[in-house]
Amino acid sequence: MKLLEERILKDGRMIGTDILKVDNFLNHQLDVNLFAEMGKEWKRLYANEEVTKILTIEASGIGIACIAALEFQCPVVFVKKGSHKYLSDDVYSAQIRSFTHGNTYNAIVDKKFLKKEDKVLIIDDFLASGEALHGMIDLVEQAGAKVVGCGVAIEKAFQPGGAEIRARGIRVESLARIARMDESGITFCD
Amino acid sequence: MKLLEERILKDGRMIGTDILKVDNFLNHQLDVNLFAEMGKEWKRLYANEEVTKILTIEASGIGIACIAALEFQCPVVFVKKGSHKYLSDDVYSAQIRSFTHGNTYNAIVDKKFLKKEDKVLIIDDFLASGEALHGMIDLVEQAGAKVVGCGVAIEKAFQPGGAEIRARGIRVESLARIARMDESGITFCD
Repeated sequence: MKLLEERILKDGRMIGTDILKVDNFLNHQLDVNLFAEMGKEWKRLYANEEVTKILTIEASGIGIACIAALEFQCPVVFVKKGSHKYLSDDVYSAQIRSFTHGNTYNAIVDKKFLKKEDKVLIIDDFLASGEALHGMIDLVEQAGAKVVGCGVAIEKAFQPGGAEIRARGIRVESLARIARMDESGITFCD
Repeated sequence: MKLLEERILKDGRMIGTDILKVDNFLNHQLDVNLFAEMGKEWKRLYANEEVTKILTIEASGIGIACIAALEFQCPVVFVKKGSHKYLSDDVYSAQIRSFTHGNTYNAIVDKKFLKKEDKVLIIDDFLASGEALHGMIDLVEQAGAKVVGCGVAIEKAFQPGGAEIRARGIRVESLARIARMDESGITFCD
């Protein structure tokens, strides 16, 4: 998606060859008009799918998921992060490793909000190691529901997550795919 | 706001006389069409204010804030919660006590995203003790910016937060104000 790539080049900040800060439009300050365009693009890409629910994970997925849901005309469910040492029988849970924070947390979602007849689009801001998406896919599968696909804002295609999730047979539509970040700047995949 | 009050009566669950669960439309599963109507109502109420930024706090404020921001045509900034033992000079911070979780956390926002020329509408899902709103107001004041007002989805008017914040001279527009919850059910303020 040209608009997102251009915005990354304009406002993103590379830290080394691995970290991309986009906190001025994607995950701390949020440009909702950009999100609306992203929502329209996912709707175009998944036009032939009957999405009944959008699943995302707190916190930075929620804004893009909600605005995309206006296009899909379906509810959003957001997965909660926490230590949740004692998990209730009312929730599905998956362990997710965070490379950013160097810890592992339980991702939980109330069983009421994922049903086996649901066709779920999973939305998140970043795809790198793929841990968060794998966790959310596991939650949908625990419910016996169908994963229609994933909608990602920025994929670091030089990390293994995207390839692994596609290898599970799951469609992934990333609106900007970064091939590499180095001294010559950010290079997107063709 | 009639629509929200009716939805609370239909889908909210009282737990005792103090707790109201609205996780099926407001803060776990999210009804984005309801959020769109809420956004229009805040826009109507604050039509004469030139809002340059909406401030909210992770996680459950983000969805309603983003959809309201489509009406106000301004960015959202969400305040992050964390222990953040070592605070950087790049952030404003406020300590917020959580009655729900029985702890105190640092609420932080990057100084880049609140400027003294900003006119800030603060949005949150619940107002009860008022701790989160007080903290966000403090962050805006640290930046030397102006608080235009607060937009709250559900106010528990039987708790002191709303009165305290209005006593600070700050406008609060709550779309549903609950006078009491008891054996006869939920009663809204007139």
